[in-house]
Amino acid sequence: MWELRSASFWRAIFAEFFATLFFIFFGLGASLHWAPGPLPVLQVALAFGLALATSVQTVGHISGAHVNPAVTFAFLVGSQMSLLRAFCYMVAQLLGAVAGAAVLYSVTPTAFRGNLALNMLHSGVSVGQATTVEIFLTLQFVLCIFATYDERRNGRLGSVALAVGFSLTLGHLFGVYWVGPIIGGGLGSLLYDFLLFPRLKSVSERLSILKGARPGDFNGQPEGTGEPVELKTQDL
Amino acid sequence: MWELRSASFWRAIFAEFFATLFFIFFGLGASLHWAPGPLPVLQVALAFGLALATSVQTVGHISGAHVNPAVTFAFLVGSQMSLLRAFCYMVAQLLGAVAGAAVLYSVTPTAFRGNLALNMLHSGVSVGQATTVEIFLTLQFVLCIFATYDERRNGRLGSVALAVGFSLTLGHLFGVYWVGPIIGGGLGSLLYDFLLFPRLKSVSERLSILKGARPGDFNGQPEGTGEPVELKTQDL
Amino acid sequence: MWELRSASFWRAIFAEFFATLFFIFFGLGASLHWAPGPLPVLQVALAFGLALATSVQTVGHISGAHVNPAVTFAFLVGSQMSLLRAFCYMVAQLLGAVAGAAVLYSVTPTAFRGNLALNMLHSGVSVGQATTVEIFLTLQFVLCIFATYDERRNGRLGSVALAVGFSLTLGHLFGVYWVGPIIGGGLGSLLYDFLLFPRLKSVSERLSILKGARPGDFNGQPEGTGEPVELKTQDL
Amino acid sequence: MWELRSASFWRAIFAEFFATLFFIFFGLGASLHWAPGPLPVLQVALAFGLALATSVQTVGHISGAHVNPAVTFAFLVGSQMSLLRAFCYMVAQLLGAVAGAAVLYSVTPTAFRGNLALNMLHSGVSVGQATTVEIFLTLQFVLCIFATYDERRNGRLGSVALAVGFSLTLGHLFGVYWVGPIIGGGLGSLLYDFLLFPRLKSVSERLSILKGARPGDFNGQPEGTGEPVELKTQDL
Repeated sequence: MWELRSASFWRAIFAEFFATLFFIFFGLGASLHWAPGPLPVLQVALAFGLALATSVQTVGHISGAHVNPAVTFAFLVGSQMSLLRAFCYMVAQLLGAVAGAAVLYSVTPTAFRGNLALNMLHSGVSVGQATTVEIFLTLQFVLCIFATYDERRNGRLGSVALAVGFSLTLGHLFGVYWVGPIIGGGLGSLLYDFLLFPRLKSVSERLSILKGARPGDFNGQPEGTGEPVELKTQDL
Repeated sequence: MWELRSASFWRAIFAEFFATLFFIFFGLGASLHWAPGPLPVLQVALAFGLALATSVQTVGHISGAHVNPAVTFAFLVGSQMSLLRAFCYMVAQLLGAVAGAAVLYSVTPTAFRGNLALNMLHSGVSVGQATTVEIFLTLQFVLCIFATYDERRNGRLGSVALAVGFSLTLGHLFGVYWVGPIIGGGLGSLLYDFLLFPRLKSVSERLSILKGARPGDFNGQPEGTGEPVELKTQDL
Repeated sequence: MWELRSASFWRAIFAEFFATLFFIFFGLGASLHWAPGPLPVLQVALAFGLALATSVQTVGHISGAHVNPAVTFAFLVGSQMSLLRAFCYMVAQLLGAVAGAAVLYSVTPTAFRGNLALNMLHSGVSVGQATTVEIFLTLQFVLCIFATYDERRNGRLGSVALAVGFSLTLGHLFGVYWVGPIIGGGLGSLLYDFLLFPRLKSVSERLSILKGARPGDFNGQPEGTGEPVELKTQDL
Repeated sequence: MWELRSASFWRAIFAEFFATLFFIFFGLGASLHWAPGPLPVLQVALAFGLALATSVQTVGHISGAHVNPAVTFAFLVGSQMSLLRAFCYMVAQLLGAVAGAAVLYSVTPTAFRGNLALNMLHSGVSVGQATTVEIFLTLQFVLCIFATYDERRNGRLGSVALAVGFSLTLGHLFGVYWVGPIIGGGLGSLLYDFLLFPRLKSVSERLSILKGARPGDFNGQPEGTGEPVELKTQDL
């Protein structure tokens, strides 16, 4: 429970809350049906992607900018964060999403509120089909995040924020998000860590990370391989 | 007042004037309603974002490419520039915006001048709602700029210009800009510097920067942590 | 045949299968004609481009993310991989494409299946014209990949994934893909390696690479000039 | 005239021819009016921008990927290349543009040839207005290129290709290209080199570069500050 006494831990939790609030506010906001005619799929997909890219750019060095419980779950399955941190992230994300939707609702004129861009199934898409699609969408998204955040890579990776944001845009161009992210997130984590690009962590090592016993192992900075940027400001 | 005798200071002021002129010229220009039908939101948002990205790419190393008084105000609140420099930046931005609009007006055929893409409130949006939205838009924008320009970060940040430009695109996808940027800018600065990723500056240190007493502390180069690029050409 | 006993070799094959499956699933999926009206060319082109960018970001360090037999053929012509590896890549890509289309078909409601976005010739385009266009499209694509993956370059190249993805988007904005990629791929390889930016490889050197005799020469990591990232996990 | 005996010089000339051919082929090709309805401005602007970005990515290290006489003229005014090289670049660009248009024409069905996306003035735009706009468009474009290629910068510049490409997209979102690029190009060069970010070159130094007397000073590699990549393959 040493984490609960760390200032950087709470900053990370707040950053997740804040980033999710903004992500929901901007993503849903840009999806609102202001004009008549069909909803512009490309515009909505880019809005969600740029909202995530901006979140990663803004708080990626503070919390990792998971923004989504499925991503946090994937990092947990990959033994990259403690159970305690994962739980707090998920609570912060949930509260952030509710707060973002509430703020958006309060600033939207009644006539435009509609269903606030909730995803709906195309008529004729079965629940099983939708779930399969979602697992695939989350799988590619989590694999892209794992590959982008992988500190073992040293090449021309460009911007972390754009890579992750455009990966989400891709999913939204396809379209149906409903249930299944947790399955896809866990699957993606296992696939990347055990099959595609294996990490040699022992079971005891994984357990100790999950229990939060190794301070400083993953304090939210996904960037580079240099020394953690938070060190200077940690535990004030 | 040593700054007033520095060539790099005046180059920075001119760069702000110039960048704002171009930003307004291209952003508004691309928003002109050439064809009948609804205004293409995505196109306008991308035009503003790419206009800012190009400005940052072009004069970011000379003045920081604030382009907007709200951004300059945020840097002032964060004690990252002197009062004198901030004041001159704002005057240059104002003059640049007027000049950009004037040039655009003079080259636009009368039939297309219309309202030159001034932002209008959707019917049904109250002034209070619009102000709240604007504070949020500016807040995310300033936070993204602060996080992107933060010289303490050392990771895979990609292009400064694209990060800042796409952050503005995100705001324009949402849409309403009217009043409130100053509140959002100041709030963003305080949030980033005191809560999200604290800087340990003493009050006296902040005051001395605001007074312009520390030469070379922030001469407009937001890039990297290497030695200031301007040094070679400073104070000719 | 030492490659067949290498774990990293089989991971690369699997990565190609997997990346092609996803590329086809997302590219075709985003091209499905959900709404009435003309197919949005820009949206489809961006979907294919972002699908490839995400593939490169995700498995570029594992297999090179060729995804396409024409690209593998170009690398083979450039003596950058063994015959055995090229053959296995192509088989994996073929199987991946079939699997991706099958998954997409199974999750698509009957009414939307249509022709699953197969490319068709505009009426009036002759087969000869279409082939010429395709050779050009593949040529620029392979040249861009070769120039981007060229480990002799050391400048501001940005993200490998976006460069390659946007190059594909460009081709799709134009439009007709039908036959000819193999010609264009081989041509591009020869043009880059012998004319534009020559590599000084002897014939015997080229032959030995094709035979797979030089272990570790190109294990799929196109990134940077640092030591191969796979070394740590190779041949478990 | 030592340049005429250099293999890298002729590779650069060929690269300009080739890059211009492709740029015209893809840019114009994507602008062809395949479907009824208004021409999609965003799509055309992105096509030109991505065509240029891909050109820069592909031959930027070989010739600098000027692609346009106005850019070459700007580099000449800035004393960054010899008169001989500038002249050969312009001839290659002209031939490349003609070849690109010819190839496009030959593969386009008669019904779609129309005016091959030649720029036309909106009715009501005077020639003086159009020229002013063009000077502005070229000015921002050349300034962005100079700032991006400036080897004195050492920050987070991201991809050279995308910066230059998106700068062109910005111009095309605005729209009118007709006459005036030469004025804008020269103006941009003078503005950047003498006012915004001065280079301290003596007149004799400038003259000697224009005469081609300093070998290796600008062999077309705009990337980084490392040793020229061409050195290994120069003058075979």
